[in-house]
Amino acid sequence: MKQLVARTALRALLVRGRVNSNMFTRCVSTAYVVKHEKEAEKPMLVHDCCGGFGDFNIRSEHVSLLGRFNLGWRRMCSASATEKKDEKPPTMGTVKKDHNGGGSVAVPSYWGIETAKMKIARKDGSKWPWNSFMPWETHQADLSIDVKKHHVPKNIADKVAYVIVKLLRIPTDMFFQRRYGCRAMMLETVAAVPGMVGGMLLHLKSIRRFEHSGSWIKALLEEAENERMHLMTMMELVRPKWHERLLVILVQGVFFSSFFACYVASPRLAHRIVGYLEEEAIHSYTEFLKDIDDGKIENVKAPAIAIDYWGLPEDATLKDVVTVIRADEAHHRDVNHFASDIRNQGKELREAAAPIGYH
Amino acid sequence: MKQLVARTALRALLVRGRVNSNMFTRCVSTAYVVKHEKEAEKPMLVHDCCGGFGDFNIRSEHVSLLGRFNLGWRRMCSASATEKKDEKPPTMGTVKKDHNGGGSVAVPSYWGIETAKMKIARKDGSKWPWNSFMPWETHQADLSIDVKKHHVPKNIADKVAYVIVKLLRIPTDMFFQRRYGCRAMMLETVAAVPGMVGGMLLHLKSIRRFEHSGSWIKALLEEAENERMHLMTMMELVRPKWHERLLVILVQGVFFSSFFACYVASPRLAHRIVGYLEEEAIHSYTEFLKDIDDGKIENVKAPAIAIDYWGLPEDATLKDVVTVIRADEAHHRDVNHFASDIRNQGKELREAAAPIGYH
Repeated sequence: MKQLVARTALRALLVRGRVNSNMFTRCVSTAYVVKHEKEAEKPMLVHDCCGGFGDFNIRSEHVSLLGRFNLGWRRMCSASATEKKDEKPPTMGTVKKDHNGGGSVAVPSYWGIETAKMKIARKDGSKWPWNSFMPWETHQADLSIDVKKHHVPKNIADKVAYVIVKLLRIPTDMFFQRRYGCRAMMLETVAAVPGMVGGMLLHLKSIRRFEHSGSWIKALLEEAENERMHLMTMMELVRPKWHERLLVILVQGVFFSSFFACYVASPRLAHRIVGYLEEEAIHSYTEFLKDIDDGKIENVKAPAIAIDYWGLPEDATLKDVVTVIRADEAHHRDVNHFASDIRNQGKELREAAAPIGYH
Repeated sequence: MKQLVARTALRALLVRGRVNSNMFTRCVSTAYVVKHEKEAEKPMLVHDCCGGFGDFNIRSEHVSLLGRFNLGWRRMCSASATEKKDEKPPTMGTVKKDHNGGGSVAVPSYWGIETAKMKIARKDGSKWPWNSFMPWETHQADLSIDVKKHHVPKNIADKVAYVIVKLLRIPTDMFFQRRYGCRAMMLETVAAVPGMVGGMLLHLKSIRRFEHSGSWIKALLEEAENERMHLMTMMELVRPKWHERLLVILVQGVFFSSFFACYVASPRLAHRIVGYLEEEAIHSYTEFLKDIDDGKIENVKAPAIAIDYWGLPEDATLKDVVTVIRADEAHHRDVNHFASDIRNQGKELREAAAPIGYH
């Protein structure tokens, strides 16, 4: 019986946790435009670019009204599971006193962990739905950044990197053509890999060599997280079909392994490749903006996650989202070319402080 | 000639960068006590625990006076390297106009990256020396946390994890014995691995499955960074010999590969192992504190990095440092047992929001 209570209570809390994780879906303003294949004048269905719509009813428009938020902290204390070696473990799910003296609460005991629960509400009273970032962690894109810059290859490594990227562009263009929504959604799954690989390898180097990192670990991990947020945003607009999901999995396996090996062998080549990849991404997003301006892709309402993450105005549109994403890619371009330049000088990255603070 | 100017300028900036990165060494209050092997009454030399003193003159005491800091932002704009495709690349190291209209500055062009330089000074006017964390990113340890908790193994996976950790303790105790300073310094190189591996694998899963992470990526990466800061702190007190450095490299290779494979195969086993490893770490730090209280290890002044990272008082000592590190390990213990519990329920981590906000 106790186990049943425990499992039920635990399941309830986990469901609540799932609800919290999934609240963003209820706040999303799904966006769509429909294109009849024979009527080129009508704007394109962003979802159709990748076929299936997954679990969402894309024909419903759910407008999220976002305002300011009020922040209040509430510490949720799970039952104290003082499992000293000689004591019996407490029964999960029973009513226990809040050990901060806040009275009795029925709290499933996740092994006594004290979870800091931030109760963050917007001005309209709706709960902050995101776990990955908080209101004070919103991302300011630098829209003044020069998106046209190009790093002219200077040495063999640069030229190799440039050729690799240009060769990769060929099958990519053949597959996506002008389906820029689909391209963005799928290629962000690739773009989020290098920062994580680089950050991890620098972390391992720092700890085995007993050296400081010059904040490059943080810079690269921030880049990876930023790219992941691009993906989380594009996911609200475009859903992949099953064969595209399979392709993403295969590509991740190949790209992760290759980039890992490349970074171990030659960090300057790896960073240069990423710099050139970002240049290509900027070009693609520029074309995406052109198609929006030309009416070929409807300039739909921005998803709630984008409005919250970049601090966009409530009436922001797809064009605003693509603009800030492009600005982010430009920054990543600069950071990676910078990193490669440092390595080209025969220096370690930690010898020049990383340009963090941008995010 | 131009190349010589460029290389000279770039080297100068990189040296300045290196100076910035290495400033922490000048702010460190190196701590030592000397123990004559035959005079057990005198406290132990923390450095001697690991033999060689590396590059530092440990017999000099460099007391850093830390006070409050004043924060001011100054954006350092590098020269604008508007390398459009048809333009010749600018010569590095030449005098260029600040493209924000701020006048001419001689800035080596790191390919035009605009670096946000935060000019942070303490009340005494000394510069904030750390790149990895800023004053607003100091870490608050929860000293009220229960360090005696133990997770009683409940199933086969728990028992396997427990046995693995207990077996690993045997050679560890044989090698380090009561050299707790050395133990802490070397084992933090191991402790910093699991959080990074777990965070990376969750990141890859999130992007290939098009799923949110429930903030677990952030939680695990924060754990890894926190452990790395433990290492950066202990490095100020204990320096490894060459053969200990070699051992660290070998152990990292084995442990990284093994833990990676374990996490892929069974995240709940991996998290449980980490939970038990943290319990052992807490035990070791408790013994460390006992030796300090018994006078067997001198309670030296805390290193500057520890004072800044944990926000300790200026007269903090080694005992304070070990106390906060132990509290951190207790939190990691809780987080990892929690994660394993979630997995034991057959749930994904993202279905229960991670306990971030602690750091």
